[in-house]
Amino acid sequence: MKVDPTMLSFDIAQRIAHTVLEEGRRRGTAPLTVAVLDAGGHQVVLYRQDGAGIVRPQIAVGKAWGSLGLGFSSRGIAEAAKRFPGFFDALAVASDGRMFPAPGGVLLRDGSGVIVGAVGVSGDSSDVDEACAVIAAREAGLVPEPAVPTASA
Amino acid sequence: MKVDPTMLSFDIAQRIAHTVLEEGRRRGTAPLTVAVLDAGGHQVVLYRQDGAGIVRPQIAVGKAWGSLGLGFSSRGIAEAAKRFPGFFDALAVASDGRMFPAPGGVLLRDGSGVIVGAVGVSGDSSDVDEACAVIAAREAGLVPEPAVPTASA
Amino acid sequence: MKVDPTMLSFDIAQRIAHTVLEEGRRRGTAPLTVAVLDAGGHQVVLYRQDGAGIVRPQIAVGKAWGSLGLGFSSRGIAEAAKRFPGFFDALAVASDGRMFPAPGGVLLRDGSGVIVGAVGVSGDSSDVDEACAVIAAREAGLVPEPAVPTASA
Amino acid sequence: MKVDPTMLSFDIAQRIAHTVLEEGRRRGTAPLTVAVLDAGGHQVVLYRQDGAGIVRPQIAVGKAWGSLGLGFSSRGIAEAAKRFPGFFDALAVASDGRMFPAPGGVLLRDGSGVIVGAVGVSGDSSDVDEACAVIAAREAGLVPEPAVPTASA
Repeated sequence: MKVDPTMLSFDIAQRIAHTVLEEGRRRGTAPLTVAVLDAGGHQVVLYRQDGAGIVRPQIAVGKAWGSLGLGFSSRGIAEAAKRFPGFFDALAVASDGRMFPAPGGVLLRDGSGVIVGAVGVSGDSSDVDEACAVIAAREAGLVPEPAVPTASA
Repeated sequence: MKVDPTMLSFDIAQRIAHTVLEEGRRRGTAPLTVAVLDAGGHQVVLYRQDGAGIVRPQIAVGKAWGSLGLGFSSRGIAEAAKRFPGFFDALAVASDGRMFPAPGGVLLRDGSGVIVGAVGVSGDSSDVDEACAVIAAREAGLVPEPAVPTASA
Repeated sequence: MKVDPTMLSFDIAQRIAHTVLEEGRRRGTAPLTVAVLDAGGHQVVLYRQDGAGIVRPQIAVGKAWGSLGLGFSSRGIAEAAKRFPGFFDALAVASDGRMFPAPGGVLLRDGSGVIVGAVGVSGDSSDVDEACAVIAAREAGLVPEPAVPTASA
Repeated sequence: MKVDPTMLSFDIAQRIAHTVLEEGRRRGTAPLTVAVLDAGGHQVVLYRQDGAGIVRPQIAVGKAWGSLGLGFSSRGIAEAAKRFPGFFDALAVASDGRMFPAPGGVLLRDGSGVIVGAVGVSGDSSDVDEACAVIAAREAGLVPEPAVPTASA
């Protein structure tokens, strides 16, 4: 199988997941779970740290998958869901529970703006989850959305 | 198959379920359903008393499973869901209906703080459900979360 | 909720599950999982012994549920499935995986022939699983189908 | 959340996944996907190499989950499924597609024989998938089942 050059490579995905955990350690976060998905929404790397609850993989995957699903970050999904709660409840069902209205799901673009995948983090507060994801994406040379760590209002 | 000594044994699970029903009888509760799960979220004992409705097993299992999913009691889930309703609606789907925002799902820890399972009770008011679970866990020598029966605000 | 007198009571269900495990101990079986369902196919008692694998509850429940589904034992389902494999593959899907073509799911009738529930056992060979279920049903004063332990050809 | 010392740690899971890929590289296999699950069947590490198809995560997870489900390797499941095809078709549904009758799902035991998790590999022939899993488990100091790489008849 020839690999699409715009696809997120396993090496880059592993590096992003590794940096998320490093950033978590630096900040002293709760145990983190991180999922890195390719542009098709399929897992490339998943890490669940000791002490993370058993539903964390679904949350980390869902934050990333939802971002790919709509083409913006799960922070954006959280904002949209405030205005259209019924729509996003329906979307949670339609997506098989992979559409989480909470920060921590970050789109990954290459230098030319093409979406190459997404990363989702769960375990600490959503703002901290997202900050770890954004920092890791930038460290790997990708362009994350959001571009910089932000804080919920 | 050799058994992990730190896992919730069938004997302890049966004792917890038995005590839940005894406590219910003492209090004159509505018919109760109680589920005791191991740390991986799998059923070890389930009891459904005469007169309990047909969806009670799903509720009892879900209260316990959700506690294991996030690492805190279903009372904590109820509190968090008040602040983030859309997130917990999505989580209900992602967990296949095993994330109930209502007291009655109680984490079980051994003496050294390790999570060994969870118990979920459904049938009476959520506060009473939880009280029966907490009392039964303590009677079996385990450390429940919450540690003592509490009342909803 | 008034209780249907033909319903399997919790006390009888508990007694059946208890006897299944006693019979298993007497025979030195592998760890057993036993599910007792009411006539509507809903769990009344589930027991999973130490060392039983994590999918055993689904198998025990499914053997019993399938018996209720078609009105004959899961041994009968195994025989029918040999003649109509495609039909029973479809039925496995249609029943959400609760139609197991293997002995160990036993119908429970009262003295007048009314189906009051079913018991399913999983863990040892299917013949042994079924023998424990049949013996436990008779011990509780119910009429099992099959009526006596049998052996697969 | 305090961590059970007998649980498969993230560090060990990561080491096993890493060694699987190294062994694959040494043998020149097709792109591999490897999943390491804890004893409850929940993902700890998942790796999917460049060029691996999009359903490979489900296969790798399923091979490992099925081993935990029944308490023996997916090679044993493949052998049992030859004798009872209808039963295992039903089990595939009951387990939500996590019961693969093919080598490559390997149980992980600690030195005292306790099951601490499972590893599943998919991508090359099933025999090669399993060999990589067995070698990686042994390298990490765990006792795999099967104990040594074997070849299908």
